[in-house]
This record gives sequence, C-alpha cells and structure tokens, in this order.
Amino acid sequence: MTATAQTPSAAGPSSPLPNDLEIARAATLRPIEEIAAAAGIPAEALELYGRYKAKIDLARLPAENRHGQVVLVTAISPTPAGEGKSTLTVGLADSLTRAGKKTMIAIREPSIGPILGMKGGATGGGRSQVLPMEDINLHFTGDFHAITSANNALCALIDNHIFQGNELGIDPRRVAFRRVMDMNDRSLRDMVIGLGGPGQGVPREAGFDITVASEVMAVFCLASSVADLKDRLARITFGYTYDRVPLTVADLGAAGVMAMLLKDAIKPNLVQTIAGTPALVHGGPFANIAHGCNSALATTTARRLADVVVTEAGFGADLGAEKFIDIKSRAADVAPSAVVIVATVRALKMHGGVAKDALKTPDEGAVVRGFANLARHVENVRKFGLEPVVAVNEFATDTQEELDTVVRLCREAGVRVAIADVWGRGGGGDGGDDLAREVLAALESPGQARQLYPLEMGIEEKIGTVVREVYRGAGVEFSDQARRMLRQIRENGWDGLPVCMAKTQYSFSDDPTLLGAPDGFTVHVRELWPRTGAGFIVAVTGSIMTMPGLPKVPAAMRMDLDEDGQITGLF
Amino acid sequence: MTATAQTPSAAGPSSPLPNDLEIARAATLRPIEEIAAAAGIPAEALELYGRYKAKIDLARLPAENRHGQVVLVTAISPTPAGEGKSTLTVGLADSLTRAGKKTMIAIREPSIGPILGMKGGATGGGRSQVLPMEDINLHFTGDFHAITSANNALCALIDNHIFQGNELGIDPRRVAFRRVMDMNDRSLRDMVIGLGGPGQGVPREAGFDITVASEVMAVFCLASSVADLKDRLARITFGYTYDRVPLTVADLGAAGVMAMLLKDAIKPNLVQTIAGTPALVHGGPFANIAHGCNSALATTTARRLADVVVTEAGFGADLGAEKFIDIKSRAADVAPSAVVIVATVRALKMHGGVAKDALKTPDEGAVVRGFANLARHVENVRKFGLEPVVAVNEFATDTQEELDTVVRLCREAGVRVAIADVWGRGGGGDGGDDLAREVLAALESPGQARQLYPLEMGIEEKIGTVVREVYRGAGVEFSDQARRMLRQIRENGWDGLPVCMAKTQYSFSDDPTLLGAPDGFTVHVRELWPRTGAGFIVAVTGSIMTMPGLPKVPAAMRMDLDEDGQITGLF
Repeated sequence: MTATAQTPSAAGPSSPLPNDLEIARAATLRPIEEIAAAAGIPAEALELYGRYKAKIDLARLPAENRHGQVVLVTAISPTPAGEGKSTLTVGLADSLTRAGKKTMIAIREPSIGPILGMKGGATGGGRSQVLPMEDINLHFTGDFHAITSANNALCALIDNHIFQGNELGIDPRRVAFRRVMDMNDRSLRDMVIGLGGPGQGVPREAGFDITVASEVMAVFCLASSVADLKDRLARITFGYTYDRVPLTVADLGAAGVMAMLLKDAIKPNLVQTIAGTPALVHGGPFANIAHGCNSALATTTARRLADVVVTEAGFGADLGAEKFIDIKSRAADVAPSAVVIVATVRALKMHGGVAKDALKTPDEGAVVRGFANLARHVENVRKFGLEPVVAVNEFATDTQEELDTVVRLCREAGVRVAIADVWGRGGGGDGGDDLAREVLAALESPGQARQLYPLEMGIEEKIGTVVREVYRGAGVEFSDQARRMLRQIRENGWDGLPVCMAKTQYSFSDDPTLLGAPDGFTVHVRELWPRTGAGFIVAVTGSIMTMPGLPKVPAAMRMDLDEDGQITGLF
Repeated sequence: MTATAQTPSAAGPSSPLPNDLEIARAATLRPIEEIAAAAGIPAEALELYGRYKAKIDLARLPAENRHGQVVLVTAISPTPAGEGKSTLTVGLADSLTRAGKKTMIAIREPSIGPILGMKGGATGGGRSQVLPMEDINLHFTGDFHAITSANNALCALIDNHIFQGNELGIDPRRVAFRRVMDMNDRSLRDMVIGLGGPGQGVPREAGFDITVASEVMAVFCLASSVADLKDRLARITFGYTYDRVPLTVADLGAAGVMAMLLKDAIKPNLVQTIAGTPALVHGGPFANIAHGCNSALATTTARRLADVVVTEAGFGADLGAEKFIDIKSRAADVAPSAVVIVATVRALKMHGGVAKDALKTPDEGAVVRGFANLARHVENVRKFGLEPVVAVNEFATDTQEELDTVVRLCREAGVRVAIADVWGRGGGGDGGDDLAREVLAALESPGQARQLYPLEMGIEEKIGTVVREVYRGAGVEFSDQARRMLRQIRENGWDGLPVCMAKTQYSFSDDPTLLGAPDGFTVHVRELWPRTGAGFIVAVTGSIMTMPGLPKVPAAMRMDLDEDGQITGLF
C-alpha cells in the first residue's frame, strides 16, 4: 500500500492538500539522458522510451563495478493503516543522495490490474515518488505485456501439442501452468477451455492468473543473465504425463521463443525520483506465491553503478526479508549490508489492538503493546546476520508522545531508529536526513547476511525452520494433499530447492486476525507448488488468490483521458 | 502474405540468397530523429522508443497541412502463390522518393499470433522492407498490448458488473463482446468461464478472439481524434439486457478508462524503410470482420507531412479497396487519388487453373485465362471513380513472354501497367522506377473517389449492391438467423451504418475454390454482427475464424534468443 491517504505534516489545515498526481505533475523532470549520464550510464547503453524512461542495454555498460552496498527496506507486519514502504524507499534514497552518497533505487514495476481495481500506484507518494508516475503505472515500457506474451505462448504451445497428437503424452488434467492477464478478472479463475468440438481443441479445466503471479515473472526476476533466463525457462515444469512424469519447457522446446519474447523486457528500466535520484524499476512478482522483489538484474546493475542501492521487499520482514535472504540472495549477488524496517505509529497501534477508525485518538499504551510486532521483526533480521535500522514513517496524526514512545522502545531494544517525513518534506528536502545518517552509520559496520537453512535440508524441515525461527509457531501441519506433494517432490528430486512461503502478510501466523506478536500457533500447509524454473517450492497456507477480483465500484470508473491526452482520476 | 519465398532476380543460381532478416540486418538505419526531421516532424513532437522507432505527438505537429495525395495499394484476389502487396507498397514509396516526391508510407502493424504460427512478418520483404523488422514484428511500441488491455478491461468490468448485482440487467447469455489475446490459441475459442462457485463469478459461455479481431482495434483505426476515439468506444454494443435492449460501453461508464489505456498507443509510430523513406506503421484490424487498414490517424498524419502517401488495404480489391472507400473514407479524410492493383504472373496462372506446384512451368495460356480476375478488379476500381495502375510484381521464375502477356492484356484493356522488381532491386534501387512513373502520371489527373452506396440504403440493399456490383453474384441468401438480425438492426436504428463484408479473400464468391472471375453465384449471409463503435455491420459469409490456431510444427519452435540478445529463427 502507498501512503496516499497521508496528510503532509507541513500543510496547514486550511491549505488544500496536493495529491500524489498533482505533486508529480508539478515536478520538473530532467531528460533521462542527463540522469543516466550522472549515474555513469553511457549514451550508447541507453534505449529511450519517450523523454523520461529508458531501458539499459547491459552489454554496453562499462565493465567497472562499484559493488555498491545493498540496503533492503522491509516493514513490520502490514496493516490496513498503511506503512508507506515504497514511499520510504524512494525518500531514503533521495536523502542518501542529499548526504553525498552515489545512490540508486531498485524497485518493482506496478501491475495494471490492481490499479484499475482499488489500489493506487506503486511509485511512492507525496514528495517521494518515482516519475513519470502515469507512465510507470500504465504499460510503462511493456515488460508485463511481454511477460504475459511469453507465458501465454507457452500455454498455446501446450494446448496445441495436445491437439496435434500429444506426442509427449501430456495429461490434460495435469497441466500445471496457467494463462495470465494483467487484469483483475475473477471470472477467469476457473474455466473449461477447448470447447466447440474436435476442431477447436481438447476440453480441459484451466484458468488465468494475474501476470504478477506467473512463474515467468518469477523466472524473469531471478535470472542473472540472458543465458540464465533461458535455462530457468527451460526448467519450468508445466505439467505431467499420464504416468505422472514431470514435463518441462525444455521437453516442449519452447524456451527459445519465450526468451525471444522477453528480449527487450529483460533490460532494466531507468527513471528518476522527484529529487532526481536514478531508479531502476523492473519486474514485479507477487510477494506471496513468489519472492516479491524487483529483478535481480536491476539490483546487480544498480550495484555496478552506485555506492548504495536501496531496494525493497514485499510485505513484512517475516515474508519479504526472509525470501530476499533465502531465495533472491542465493540466485544473485544481492546480499544486503543493512536492513531498514519501516513502522508507523498508526500500524503499531493496530497491532496493539486499536481499530482502524479509532487510529486518530492518541494512545501510547497501544503503541507499547503493538511494539511487540516490531521487536520480533528486529530479532528476526538479526537472525539473518544483519543489524536493522527502524524507520518511523511520520503521519500528521501522530502525536509527539507517540513518536517519542517508539524511539524510546527502540533505544531500549538497542536498535537504531529515526523518524522520517519523506512524504511531506521529501528525502530531497530534509525529511529523511536523520534516517540517512542512521543507515550510513549501519553501513559503516555492515552485516554479513546468512541464510536460515542449508539447501540440503528437506522441504518439510525447511518449512519447519522458517515457521519456528521466523514466525515463532509451535509447528507445521501438512494436509493430506501437501503430504502427497512432499513425496512427489522427493521423488522428482526437487527437495534441494528453497521454500517460498505463501502466507497472509497481516500476521506472523497463518491467521490474518492474529496481530501483534503471537506464538505457539500451528501453521497449516495446504498445498505445495513446485516452481522448478524460478527454483523454489511454494508452501501454500490458507487460501491464496492468484487472480484478484474488482470491487463493486472499481477505481477504473473514475479514470478518463481528456482531449489533450491528459489522464484524470488515476489517483 | 509477404514475398519471402521469392528469388531475387539479380542473384545468380550459385550465389547464396540473403533472406529478409539478413538483408534487414545488413541495412544501415538512420537515427529516427533524422528521418523525422526530413519528414517535417519537429523534435518536440517525437517520443523515442529506442533509436529507430518513435511515436508522434499529434498535438505538437505544426499546423500546416500538405494534404498529400493518397495512393491505395490493393491486389487481385490473393492466391497461395503470394502477391507481395506489402513489399510492393514499401518499394513503390521508395521509388516515389527516388523520383523526387516527398513520400510517406502508412501501413498496418503485424500481430504476434500469426508470426509465432506460420506467417512471416508484415514489414515487406527483400530490399523493400520497413525497419527495424524484428522490433516491428515483436511487441513494437506496445500498441496491440494496450488495445488488448483496453478490450479486456471492458470484459472484466462487464463480468464484475454481473457479479456485483447486475444493476443494468445484462443477460449473461447475450454478452456480445469477447476477450482478446495477441496469440494463435484455438483452445480459447469456446469456453465456460466464471466456474468455481458463487465467489468466483457467474458461469457463462465466452471466448477469446485474436487482438486484431477486437472491435477496440477497429475503433482505434477509424478514430479521427482522441475525442472521436472516446465517442466510438462509448458506442460499442457489448451485450443485451434480458429484454434484448442493447447495452453500450457508455451505459457501463467504461469509455474513459479504455481511452486512458490507449493514451500512448493512439499516437502513430514512425519508422523507416531500408531506403530511408519515413513510414507510419500503426494499427492493424482484420481484413474480414473489420476494414483491414492502418489507423486513420496515421493516414491523415502522413497527408499532413507528405505530398504522396502510399497506403495498403487488406486482401484483394473486392474486399480491401471496397472497404477503404465505403468505410474508411467515410470516417476520415483519406480518399485515394490513385489505386495500384498488385498482380503476379504466378497468381494469374493460379487463377487460370494451374496448381501451385506447377507454377514454375511457363504457361502463357494460363496467364491469359487468369487475367479475367485482374480485369474485373480493374473494372471495380473504375466503379469507385478511380483509374487503377496495375503493378506486376516480378518473380525470378517469370518468363519474359509471360510478363509481356500481362502487359499486352493491360494495354488492350486501356489500363496503366508497369513491371516492378522491388524485392530484388528495391524501390531505393531502380526496381520500381517504371511503376513510380505510371503512378505519378495517374496522380496528374487524380480520380474522385465515390462510395458504392448511400448510407440511407437499408443493410440488405447495401449487401446486395456490393454483391452485384463488385462480386458479380446473382443474389444474396440470408440465413434465418441473419434475417432475425436484420430485423433487430432495423429496430435498434443501426441500418444507417455501412456494411463490412466478411468473405473469403480467395474468390469473388463466398466459395474459396472458385478462382478467376466467376459470376451468377449466390452469396450466403450466415450472420450479421453489429459493430456500433467501429460503425459498421459485419456480414458474415461462410465460416470466419476470429481466433486462429497453431500448425503442427509452429514457427515458434525455431525461434530463439542468443546470449548477445540477438534473435534467431524469426524469419
């Protein structure tokens, strides 16, 4: 969630508050060639998309590598109050730039589906945004469309193979790869395709996921090169034979055409923040059934060019940071040197038991109770070998007493802390100076990231380790189906893969109503989904939605294009 | 079809023949800014997409308008031998440039679906190509993806409306608007969606078309401005109530978001030919269920900038040219001043009864017999008030006697004719000099295009007029369903729209095996599809495929991306 509902602290009660779109439009963008030149990207490596967006041809980047330090921005367990993690990521980078550090951002691209549904964009908010926000939030440089094409080309080839004689013996009931669309469209979740008679295909059950849930998206974001992209695509298990032998994209011979369709998409996209910090906005897998961070290539490219790279992981630290360490850092050279945990007074109060509509009432007691959630995330980050910095993202409704309470509790826990107002004052202003100072201090004595479990451990044990060490559950219960899948995974030789937990982001447990810092609970693993291309096993707890729906009055209904080609109603 | 199977006349039998991709890669492209500047497009109107593609912001074009003359390239009835219409369009424009005329091309964008299936690109061939062909043939500037998004956003909003209480009373059995995908995927033709229980939507029959078959594509290509785009989107009839009252996009309130998703797509794309002629490649509706030519905005933009605009219509002149005059020229200021009819010796021989595998055997008698097809297209073009020029697209297998025969027959019929070798020698070479001379002579005394029927005529009479005047059929037979639809069209007040004939391209009749110049046949209208946004009524004869399938060994299987990011196997 973005902090679009926030009130900028600087604005008085009577002054009309500019919204994100107004702030973005009032900003003066520099030509992207200038941003690139300042970042050390030569003109010949730049492929322009309009005036303010460009793709970077990695083959034409200079060989030198600054090997910048990675700062991972994560958060406490999210609440409906919103913690403004993207806004803080952008603002922190601007503050680091202001502090004289050569800084670059690496974050995810937004998905059109949720934008037309109910969510704002994923480009930050207030005075801490990446621009041009209208372009980034709609189509951008076409990456998600290319990923959609690659995913659906595979699906067309699978069904065509079955139709044309089915030489591989694909069991139409066991095709495990779904079509995707970058749209919130619930009626495509479950369908029967291939109807209409023998000339129209072979009837079978199927469905669409949203594009961010595609394994091609996860592969795209974990690939370290074009060669690795092709290898991972080739390893995707798309289904099984009638004898339950797994079938891969390599068996079908489709990795080449899929990679071809991703030819341009795989090049990272360069844009800028309001304050002019260069940002690579590239890739965007789900944070539940996938690992939830921007492409590995964007992060490693930023490390080549900058001294500090600020990047973000999805959801809270129990999910995003754990996957960043246990999945992404194994696939690419992106291990963080410091971790920022974003918290807000409002969210801590919700973890302390306050209802959303009562958040404006000052309540230090609730802050103290809710701090348990933050404290546990701090402990968890330390388990990864890293020393966190807590960033308190300030809202206009926060009282000084509440803010002081968070700072005091952090100091008592021996953890670095700073209050930031990057939404209202911006990182380009002085809103993130204190935070930048703390982060730079942390980077002076950088941590040494370590994975939670070795790959040799079995899948069941890996899940158990995450549940006990990070979530603090008492144990794991596997459904009968999950047990069958565990056996299958062993038989197919996939148990050396890391696990990707698909769990509610709202609680450490698998029960979204259990806020704060619960323990002693049991996590229920319903299914296990092998993602052999991405290279992880998804452990599904609870019900996971891979194709969202639209609300009764979708945000789309207020969106429009005026005769001058200007968008209205996007935010 | 492109002329990729052609042998360049210049190459001797022992020299290895370069293919289209090799010729394209060997070409030296000029930066698109240079092409734009030479075409009179100021830098501030240019939005770059890489080095060799740009979108044109029409609001920033100078007000002056050259009001260039339009040359429409059409063809005899297509045969599997291929007539090379796109290649000739590109080559003619290069020859006109070479002759000193300020010339611009306006042609369609290719669809990815058929490229992954069996067809080559739609960017010309040999030495007459628009470049960069790999980009144009894959994703290009994302227009088709944006059209797909706009189409499918409407579908998601329709099904969400039904799910969320169905205030408009949409009859789920009478939703007349299908989802689209830019893919050849037969198993998506007929499906049941909304399965999985009450939380997952409302079950109903549905299906996907290929993106080029979308009414949004037809709307996009007929819109004369952003305001007109929105008006046309709002007029799309997406379904009916339980009482059979038509429902439009305006009723649903979705025109704004659809237009927003097309914000950038609607700007024409500028590229260049191998010889450096500027080309607007923009939009690409089907030539059967739609009108089959590039966007009206691309054609009118080219007219503002150039003295001669070479553009192309789909299929043969009975379909493409008729629709250009009766549909596109009513919607936009694009009436042609001259028409080029492309013919080949090979295709004429097929119309004269020769089988495809016997085409290499010289056969002047077959040329004489097959000329009847060309002669009728000449007559038809004259009925539109225009004097055609016949372009004989030369192949290496043609004998001089065969070529002479075509020229003689044309002279006897009193029609301008020229032999062109734009594939082998190129229009930038001297391959199209004779043709350019004939076209320029025709433009000296330009025709005055006139429509075949007035809009006041009823739908039945409009169809009858096209069948009698253009196809030379004895009459029209309407199925019971088509009769019911005729009544509905009258009741809904749609009978003032022009008709869009969906007929086989291979014959003047609705029987694809009836080559040459048949007459006395009956055309069978099976269904009528109202396309109230695009602004025509589709008359469906025979079976029309709106979602193609893949062949047993799709072209996709040989496509690949190497480690340097170079595509292989695309052509």
